Amino acid sequence: MTQILEPTDTVTPQQRVDAWLADFEAALAVRDVERVVAKFATDSFWRDLVAFTWNIKTVEGRDEIADMLHARLAGTEPSGFTTREAPTQDGDVTSAFIEFETAAGRGVGHLRLKDDQAWTLLTALQELKGHEERKGQTRVLGAVHGSDPDPRSWAEKRAEEDASLGRAVQPYALVVGGGQGGIALGARLRQLGVPAIVVDKHDRPGDQWRKRYKSLCLHDPVWYDHLPYLPFPANWPVFSPKDKIGDWLEFYTRVMEVPYWPKTTCVSAKFDAEVGRWTVEVDRDGERLTLHPTQLVLATGMSGKPNVPTLPGQDAFRGDQHHSSAHPGPDRYVGKKAVVVGSNNSAHDICKALYENGVDVTMVQRSSTHIVKSDTLMDIGLGNLYSERAVAAGMSTEKADLTFASLPYRIMHEFQIPLYDAMRERDRDFYNRLTAAGFELDWGDDSSGLFMKYLRRGSGYYIDVGAADLVADGKIKLAHGQVDRLTADSVVLADGTDLPADLVVYATGYGSMNGWAADLIGQEVADKVGKVWGLGSDTTKDPGPWEGEQRNMWKPTQQENLWFHGGNLHQSRHYSLYLALQLKARHEGIPTPVYGLQEVHHLS
Amino acid sequence: MTQILEPTDTVTPQQRVDAWLADFEAALAVRDVERVVAKFATDSFWRDLVAFTWNIKTVEGRDEIADMLHARLAGTEPSGFTTREAPTQDGDVTSAFIEFETAAGRGVGHLRLKDDQAWTLLTALQELKGHEERKGQTRVLGAVHGSDPDPRSWAEKRAEEDASLGRAVQPYALVVGGGQGGIALGARLRQLGVPAIVVDKHDRPGDQWRKRYKSLCLHDPVWYDHLPYLPFPANWPVFSPKDKIGDWLEFYTRVMEVPYWPKTTCVSAKFDAEVGRWTVEVDRDGERLTLHPTQLVLATGMSGKPNVPTLPGQDAFRGDQHHSSAHPGPDRYVGKKAVVVGSNNSAHDICKALYENGVDVTMVQRSSTHIVKSDTLMDIGLGNLYSERAVAAGMSTEKADLTFASLPYRIMHEFQIPLYDAMRERDRDFYNRLTAAGFELDWGDDSSGLFMKYLRRGSGYYIDVGAADLVADGKIKLAHGQVDRLTADSVVLADGTDLPADLVVYATGYGSMNGWAADLIGQEVADKVGKVWGLGSDTTKDPGPWEGEQRNMWKPTQQENLWFHGGNLHQSRHYSLYLALQLKARHEGIPTPVYGLQEVHHLS
Repeated sequence: MTQILEPTDTVTPQQRVDAWLADFEAALAVRDVERVVAKFATDSFWRDLVAFTWNIKTVEGRDEIADMLHARLAGTEPSGFTTREAPTQDGDVTSAFIEFETAAGRGVGHLRLKDDQAWTLLTALQELKGHEERKGQTRVLGAVHGSDPDPRSWAEKRAEEDASLGRAVQPYALVVGGGQGGIALGARLRQLGVPAIVVDKHDRPGDQWRKRYKSLCLHDPVWYDHLPYLPFPANWPVFSPKDKIGDWLEFYTRVMEVPYWPKTTCVSAKFDAEVGRWTVEVDRDGERLTLHPTQLVLATGMSGKPNVPTLPGQDAFRGDQHHSSAHPGPDRYVGKKAVVVGSNNSAHDICKALYENGVDVTMVQRSSTHIVKSDTLMDIGLGNLYSERAVAAGMSTEKADLTFASLPYRIMHEFQIPLYDAMRERDRDFYNRLTAAGFELDWGDDSSGLFMKYLRRGSGYYIDVGAADLVADGKIKLAHGQVDRLTADSVVLADGTDLPADLVVYATGYGSMNGWAADLIGQEVADKVGKVWGLGSDTTKDPGPWEGEQRNMWKPTQQENLWFHGGNLHQSRHYSLYLALQLKARHEGIPTPVYGLQEVHHLS
Repeated sequence: MTQILEPTDTVTPQQRVDAWLADFEAALAVRDVERVVAKFATDSFWRDLVAFTWNIKTVEGRDEIADMLHARLAGTEPSGFTTREAPTQDGDVTSAFIEFETAAGRGVGHLRLKDDQAWTLLTALQELKGHEERKGQTRVLGAVHGSDPDPRSWAEKRAEEDASLGRAVQPYALVVGGGQGGIALGARLRQLGVPAIVVDKHDRPGDQWRKRYKSLCLHDPVWYDHLPYLPFPANWPVFSPKDKIGDWLEFYTRVMEVPYWPKTTCVSAKFDAEVGRWTVEVDRDGERLTLHPTQLVLATGMSGKPNVPTLPGQDAFRGDQHHSSAHPGPDRYVGKKAVVVGSNNSAHDICKALYENGVDVTMVQRSSTHIVKSDTLMDIGLGNLYSERAVAAGMSTEKADLTFASLPYRIMHEFQIPLYDAMRERDRDFYNRLTAAGFELDWGDDSSGLFMKYLRRGSGYYIDVGAADLVADGKIKLAHGQVDRLTADSVVLADGTDLPADLVVYATGYGSMNGWAADLIGQEVADKVGKVWGLGSDTTKDPGPWEGEQRNMWKPTQQENLWFHGGNLHQSRHYSLYLALQLKARHEGIPTPVYGLQEVHHLS
């Protein structure tokens, strides 16, 4: 009985979390919503990824939590809440990775307590009961031991499956776009046994990267970029060159057995609400086929369709002009003059490669841009979750993703602002030099920096890998203002500045992803679905009202059986799971009552 | 000072190992060989993989250990011996994973103590100082940050490197054979910055597997089969079908950037001892090229060249006849009669596929065969090191490989015999049924089972994945004895038995790997090098004297600058490291005095 001699009034983080979870679960079990809600702080957030809401949904504060539970608690039947490892304490916040189950599946999550009340709760479905992926202990045998009733080899079965898919056998899901998003989703659907086809217009998986400007490298570091199932090896570069990531995607597609149709474009798609399936006309390397998938996923790039400005004089311009997405690289412009319209990531990358290859290049800055140095961003912005330092400290990709996902969008900027303050301080001289050179800097509407800009508008920044120094040094020339018109051999700005040009690159960004839906299905459906991406933060290019989650991404939309998937490699990895589980549940006929289907406030 | 109250006479495994290592290191430091040797038991073994001996060498007993140290201690300068994790105790044996360094590099190893004396010690070089692989913390950046003095993209650099290799730039090492062995070695040489080319006769990497009989799956389970750098994902099948492993090898080659020349055969090779390099004539897809590598590695398959018996009547036989390595599978023989000569792995696999596809098949057993059921072998034979169970218990591939490597070949059979006793007991009914069907079984000369047969002779067994039941049930017919002759339509055995046949498959095994050297370089060099594979165990097909290591594998041979590499996926993974480090050291001009170069006792 020595413990009587010890002080027992000090509650450990483990005890605190265990007590909270036990009482939380007990209240859930008796369907006592009031008691559950009382366990949350007044300012609190419950983010659910498919486990309770069959949606991607954050409910904020006790009233919204109560509303969600009234709608979904009985159907969800949650139980088995427990910690996955020892909780940690930081000031007055106790944090824990948790797991739990529901009637339909098993989930993991993350909990932050303040004063024994929940501040943030994340619940994330990981697998459906009875439909678990076969891996580890349950992986397939491969060889058939004993006499084989099916004498076909693996290769023959694969070939026959390929031959019948889309002809004798219809895919349950059609994924349009085979970049990292479509490929990651295709891999998960394959593992889950959901018949699917990923179609892409390019010749080979990975061409989405290979065909861009030759100097392109990933701007996110390797630890952030792992795909599901198959992490990059330890010798993979921090910033993968575009052709190398292209090869990886091609490799990944093959070894993960993703059903992938290259050289295939979708001509039209129409949903038949009566029978609940799509009719999609595709051109597969010259052959017309009609597909009848139940679910249609647009994974054609979160950046959406290229914005190409219409300007007077474009017809008369005698040089080359193209959008940044079609820029071939500097080789054919050596010794010539280039004007790059725009001052974000692509503009900087393209200007840098042009300058380094002996092109006289001018960047036209139309509005202020947010710049952070890559090293600084890696260290301060991502280092605790996605870095060699994090790996050494025991941070797995799964834990990093859960931590990342556990921060409610409503308050995420509050976590971000101090990081960017630190970056600004660290690189003060760098920013002073840029400003002195006339470059117009910003840090986002609320000084919350790059990641919030990415989530809100997907644009407005450059992760500096060297181009900013070239701007500061005047090696990349700088001009300001809107473009007024083109002449036969120059770009004329609003203030009359005339910039001689053999080449004009429009690094002018992209539209909303529902532009893809307009092209493929029609404007009516595009308008029904509304704007894709952004949080409703009421900041530049992300109008309110507040949404709480990214619009239309990875979750049910106002158009039945139409989904959007995309984003960077991190998002392709992480959110492909939740989209795949939603599709799998529907494929298996598991009830999926959606709580809080988002409303549409903006058309594009 | 509470520990005074505790009993202190109980030495923990950690304390025992720490004390041994400290005194061992102190004795090494003062070059006191006698004192070092006294730390080993009378019956003891020190296995060294390149760290002390620049060889793969086991020294047995105090005298041999002393001899090795007198030759190599001063040059090696070992230090820094420490445990990598807590040692474990099992009966009177204390086991520890260790690490250490030498003047040239850093190593890991394994130690077993009995009564404070070393029973087994493994020392294995892992990297050369100043030539460490760039991975994890030191991985390459990929993107060039700042102004780039080399404007070429990654793809352009790779293309130029490919174009110059073998023409303007000579490879330091030429690896002949691009199966799993050549590919794994090629990947390591690439990471170590050793200019190399892997050449292979097939159209694509992986064709070595794809082109074999269609029902083939790996007989070793996935946990045993990982390649360096890039382990199989958790959803990979236990026994990979041949085409799936072929795809993996093809894309592994690509993403690991292995310099690989498909469709290339070596016509001849000659070593010029004066200049210390080879002249190798190759045919690269129709183009003749002369290469001048310094090092030549034969990785053309540990099985060596096919043994095809010469029999009277082969010319007159009107059906198909081929070696098992050229067998196309059952499809063209449906409804016909087949005779498969041999009763090992390939014979059983081929008979099973023929039977399952409606072929009347007879297996000709010429001598007894060792059979173990795959499930039993996985569970009892490999389960503690290579299984999901091992992974769950914290066994990494690296630790499993080190444990495996730490068992001296001299006593390995003593560890194996009880395992096979347990297998025989577990599957008693199975073996009784086989014997009742007339099948002649054995368990190796000393009942040590499959793995010792593999190491000693590389043949004489079948890992049962179902064919044995077909034999026991009489579905695969069985005949016995040597083949006397063929007629126009049958195989006649020594006892006069006449087996009608439309197809004869010679599943008659392979010769020694130095047969490849004879073909490529000449019989003189093949004889100088002598027999490859086997331990000198004085058992069937592995004549003495005792060698202590596998003959000529992964280590210097009597032919300067000629090496042999091969084996299963496990060996390709593990031993490619030690071969790569030996080549890298020579490439960098690091002195590599070889201790105990093996003598030649057998020509093939």
